[in-house]
Amino acid sequence: MRRPRIAVTMGDPAGIGPEVVLWLLKHPEIEQECVPIVFGDASVLRRVSSPAGVPFNATVISKTDWAKGHASISQATVLDLGCIDASQVIPGKVSAACGEAAFQYVIAGIDAGLAGEIHAVSTAPLNKEAMHAAGHKYPGHTEIFAERMKASRSCMMQYSDEITCSFVTVHCGYADVPRLLTVQRIVEVIELTAEALRKIRGHEPKLLACGLNPHAGENGLFGNGEEERVIGPAIFAARDRGINVTGPVPPDTAFTPARRKEFDAVICMYHDQGHIPVKMIAFDSAVNTTLGLPVVRTSVDHGTAFDIAWQGKANPSSLFSAVRLATKLSRDSEPVTRLRA
Amino acid sequence: MRRPRIAVTMGDPAGIGPEVVLWLLKHPEIEQECVPIVFGDASVLRRVSSPAGVPFNATVISKTDWAKGHASISQATVLDLGCIDASQVIPGKVSAACGEAAFQYVIAGIDAGLAGEIHAVSTAPLNKEAMHAAGHKYPGHTEIFAERMKASRSCMMQYSDEITCSFVTVHCGYADVPRLLTVQRIVEVIELTAEALRKIRGHEPKLLACGLNPHAGENGLFGNGEEERVIGPAIFAARDRGINVTGPVPPDTAFTPARRKEFDAVICMYHDQGHIPVKMIAFDSAVNTTLGLPVVRTSVDHGTAFDIAWQGKANPSSLFSAVRLATKLSRDSEPVTRLRA
Repeated sequence: MRRPRIAVTMGDPAGIGPEVVLWLLKHPEIEQECVPIVFGDASVLRRVSSPAGVPFNATVISKTDWAKGHASISQATVLDLGCIDASQVIPGKVSAACGEAAFQYVIAGIDAGLAGEIHAVSTAPLNKEAMHAAGHKYPGHTEIFAERMKASRSCMMQYSDEITCSFVTVHCGYADVPRLLTVQRIVEVIELTAEALRKIRGHEPKLLACGLNPHAGENGLFGNGEEERVIGPAIFAARDRGINVTGPVPPDTAFTPARRKEFDAVICMYHDQGHIPVKMIAFDSAVNTTLGLPVVRTSVDHGTAFDIAWQGKANPSSLFSAVRLATKLSRDSEPVTRLRA
Repeated sequence: MRRPRIAVTMGDPAGIGPEVVLWLLKHPEIEQECVPIVFGDASVLRRVSSPAGVPFNATVISKTDWAKGHASISQATVLDLGCIDASQVIPGKVSAACGEAAFQYVIAGIDAGLAGEIHAVSTAPLNKEAMHAAGHKYPGHTEIFAERMKASRSCMMQYSDEITCSFVTVHCGYADVPRLLTVQRIVEVIELTAEALRKIRGHEPKLLACGLNPHAGENGLFGNGEEERVIGPAIFAARDRGINVTGPVPPDTAFTPARRKEFDAVICMYHDQGHIPVKMIAFDSAVNTTLGLPVVRTSVDHGTAFDIAWQGKANPSSLFSAVRLATKLSRDSEPVTRLRA
């Protein structure tokens, strides 16, 4: 069985990214499923290894090596991008130099994906302040990926074994949500979610779509008919395309234990409709993924945790989950350039 | 120690109300805490007793007995209101006669509360369709209570041992919420909640207030500044009045296990912000209460369950919880007429 090559960006050098990446490099089970290739600085990993208490003995290759032989790499490897001098890095400190390096790891990962050199990108955490200090004014990874990959349609999905939510709207104000709900957008999110879950679960998924209003509007009693005018028709359209999706249901009944058992994922109309339940029951295990991009992208669900950086205290389980999900989402797909050929 | 008298309305005769009430009447622990007085029809309870398999041997009194001696009642009792002929009732069937009877039990409970004859009202479920067929076009109990008690300020609270939420807005459309958020209204809900929790928990409560927007607006990045303009100032005003309230916090971080342990209740800006987490972790145990009324009012968190009515299958635990909460909320308070004197 082919193991996909997963680019794992090292994240901000001054954060917990380097040490969770070190744990990943010495995790034998991960290597049975995929070939993790860390996009980062080998000098930083070497320096972090000792205080964090994680041995570092993975193969290191240069950009020249990569250009010559990326397709033949068959074990966990560090692609040394040489973005920062490790002796400059102060653990737990915001700096433009670290922000710039972290940004460059991501750009290199995206470009390797677009060039068909890797199958997916999993990202360790950026520090937004450091990245802004370096002059890159993005709110986060998602926007860097969306812009550089010129995705025509995409959506955020938060995945865990216990609960999975996809989002019709995400980072906008509460009051902006109703006008952003359209039949086309909701159908798009339902389709992207069904497609992703087929790969992850290996069967045709059962999806549940929330309403927008309390009690899903209770037959027009509350709200402006968003359920009847927009969400309901989108569900019909998606069912017409063969997708198993139910709703719109009252949002407060969508996440009960019985419903979580019955359905593979919930289609959420806005950020907190899904983020509240995900953070309640899968705080440490959820993985963030952007569906619909030409290259699979998953991300840890935590930040740089500057307060515990380089101390051997960081928990790498979210990165393991992110890499595993990227592996599943890469199933049955070839790197993008081959698809295009 | 004085035990408060709790009026327990029997609910729709054709639903599960009568049998959960029968269970309550023979529950010795409840009687140690309060004096439950069922406002209903003794003939219906007698008829339900056999198919439901719950013996009925409580004292039954008439309206005349009640008028003469309500203050001296010291054990579980049925106040027989004579609203319906038990032989007419078909279990599980919507009927105007049952809707009318259920409505009259509630009115009698409210009026007994306003007259200072009882300390609190706990309600078994109404059937909205039956009540509407009888010509009473209320959405539910809350509106009957609010109208008849002419409450100047009130709010819904959902209470359980695991999670408690109070609501600034409840039964309105999603899009109506932003304009309904005012500093005055939020302060009101914080005050009502603090007052109730002092009685329930016996200590000064720690409250947490949610923002409205994703990430509580992230310093103005999302939304129309609701956190800075409205929610934040309301929290400051409440703190000025000596209430321990924190926020506005990102809504998706308000209900994590750590936060639930640290705070006694969460102030929610809209229906699903709090109903999603409550239904996730306290589906069977949450009690609904309306704070700020001149008489304490609690309610079961389930409906009439016509499909299992009179079959001995109904679970009375929500009614027990509702009566217990009413008992706690009646602490240190006298029936209203004495307060007014």
